[in-house]
Amino acid sequence: MGPGPSDVPASVLLSMARPVLGHLDPVFVSMMEELKGMLREVFHTANEMTFPVSGTGSAGMEFCFANLIEPGDEVVIGINGVFGMRMAEVASRCGAKVIKVESPWGTIITPQQIVAGLEGHNPKLVAIVHAETSTGALTPVEEISRLVHDAGALFVLDTVTSLAGCPVLVDAWGVDAVYSGTQKCLSCPPGLSPVSLSARALEVASRRKTKVQSWYLDVNLLAAYWGQDRVYHHTAPISMNYALHEALRLVLEEGLEARWQRHAKSHRMLKRAIEAMGLSFAAQTGHQLWQLNAISVPLGIDEAVVRRRLLVEDGIEIGAGLGPLKGKIWRVGLMGATSTEENVRRFVAAFGRILKGTGSDCDVEAALSACTSE
Amino acid sequence: MGPGPSDVPASVLLSMARPVLGHLDPVFVSMMEELKGMLREVFHTANEMTFPVSGTGSAGMEFCFANLIEPGDEVVIGINGVFGMRMAEVASRCGAKVIKVESPWGTIITPQQIVAGLEGHNPKLVAIVHAETSTGALTPVEEISRLVHDAGALFVLDTVTSLAGCPVLVDAWGVDAVYSGTQKCLSCPPGLSPVSLSARALEVASRRKTKVQSWYLDVNLLAAYWGQDRVYHHTAPISMNYALHEALRLVLEEGLEARWQRHAKSHRMLKRAIEAMGLSFAAQTGHQLWQLNAISVPLGIDEAVVRRRLLVEDGIEIGAGLGPLKGKIWRVGLMGATSTEENVRRFVAAFGRILKGTGSDCDVEAALSACTSE
Repeated sequence: MGPGPSDVPASVLLSMARPVLGHLDPVFVSMMEELKGMLREVFHTANEMTFPVSGTGSAGMEFCFANLIEPGDEVVIGINGVFGMRMAEVASRCGAKVIKVESPWGTIITPQQIVAGLEGHNPKLVAIVHAETSTGALTPVEEISRLVHDAGALFVLDTVTSLAGCPVLVDAWGVDAVYSGTQKCLSCPPGLSPVSLSARALEVASRRKTKVQSWYLDVNLLAAYWGQDRVYHHTAPISMNYALHEALRLVLEEGLEARWQRHAKSHRMLKRAIEAMGLSFAAQTGHQLWQLNAISVPLGIDEAVVRRRLLVEDGIEIGAGLGPLKGKIWRVGLMGATSTEENVRRFVAAFGRILKGTGSDCDVEAALSACTSE
Repeated sequence: MGPGPSDVPASVLLSMARPVLGHLDPVFVSMMEELKGMLREVFHTANEMTFPVSGTGSAGMEFCFANLIEPGDEVVIGINGVFGMRMAEVASRCGAKVIKVESPWGTIITPQQIVAGLEGHNPKLVAIVHAETSTGALTPVEEISRLVHDAGALFVLDTVTSLAGCPVLVDAWGVDAVYSGTQKCLSCPPGLSPVSLSARALEVASRRKTKVQSWYLDVNLLAAYWGQDRVYHHTAPISMNYALHEALRLVLEEGLEARWQRHAKSHRMLKRAIEAMGLSFAAQTGHQLWQLNAISVPLGIDEAVVRRRLLVEDGIEIGAGLGPLKGKIWRVGLMGATSTEENVRRFVAAFGRILKGTGSDCDVEAALSACTSE
């Protein structure tokens, strides 16, 4: 119940125990096509270039920036948490001139801020984080995407924590480059980063004047392996691809809409309980993530003690705050298979008991009574 | 029996079916320490900075070059196959001025060539491939390492195919930066790249004037996660690390010396059989790899037909030639768990039968008689 990895269903774990096929074996090659097809469904996109990068979510972030940015390019980056900061850092290492659009941690990036960020600039791309794992805030992207395209820029979206846990509509929202991780709402072990590039983004990458600085992440080379030519590039992580295949199958079996609703339900249940306990959520009201719940640490409580006791006494892992939120929030993940009513109840009972034990006067009984499905 | 992935033992496959721990979980953190310790044993090094990069072998290659090279640096790269070419390409994308030392594919890089390559230059590093997977040639490195250090440069070695299949003595040979893959002689699924940096290499990386162009592969950031601080960098591929842990345990249980000898024995057995059949090995005599056996395709035989029939009729995968060796060699991997007498016999019988069936007059009976352990 931390910020990921989430619980992994048994069939996904067991899929990795299958014998390892070669990366050019015809059976594995068919599986690659199925993976691409299922990823397109989950991303709600028809983008041909939709596949898993052979690294974790941060490699997917680097894939997007390294392929789209050439030295000297201007880029606008929305920063309202750790992952926005990381995007700015990665873009800058790709040689970009970064224009930062900053919001206080826990709040969203607004269209007005993007308008201000674009003013007087001619950026090649604008990037924001959809679901900020470090703060629990969900930034609405449709209006921002329109503004970005009106300015003639590409729109890049981090969906590491949002994908399969709440709506992510790549084509409808006009997202040009998107990356995610496997270990959040897809409930697959970490190790791959699903990505998708629009035809427009792919064209930008293929018409570069300079080579992509990363050979490993160069989409022009990867397209020859993941496309129809099957030209050897690197040895794909076969077992991880088995896991992602099975995880995607489970996501589509449940149905995206049903999966989103399950995440919404668990979140509401947890929120009712936490508020009945007298505590509050840290992220901006109206923009709180379903899959990552940031709870404000009450004054006088040592958050690390509570976290440690949860792990040792109850076998429940939750996350700490990062950066300016260190010591100020707990991050409770309700992602993928972890997002169940039973888990919410188990967490509330353990969390309440331990909080009381550390001197808080929180109302555990009220919390447990409030902890019901609607 | 291709150029990797090799067969993976059941206990390694099953290790991946274990529940996924968090990347900062104290139990996983202890496992990271054990991984580093076992990798040091396998690399024959005391280097503190020895750990698995979260990507496949090519990510390990990029890790070494991206951390050590700054734009404008001169580097000398030995090229005698696909992976030497790849090193030159990766180094060049890191901004290096690449001085190429080229040998015909199938032959080794000689100390005399390195002397010539160093002349008139002041390179920051010299890199060669120990075991060229694309040709089956093993380049001796001790003399080259001495020359490189005399020239004041760092010595970088690709051991993707050599590690755990033949001697790799990082400290004794004075290797400053080394990378490998998991899916060759370690018999672990692909997905991680074990690397090791000497104190000298680490100092070069930490005293850079420019930032490492890859955030994902920046050793200065990775050291904070894999070192004692445990600062979150990226979410490690947990299940892949379980697999590597178990694979390394098996390697050390067998013993490195015994494992190298097993690889040598399988190779000699295959070679006797292939030569008795009237065929020959493609790599330079005296420098043929034990774990990757390149067999010259006889005139008039379509290598792809033989390869395809081996896969379909006998369930045996072998590799094709790459680049200038396309159509000219078959690559038979005898790596890790795949390197057994039984596998050699099975391959020789199937290969001989199919070759005969495609019109070759090879002597299958003689091959099978020669196919014995000493």
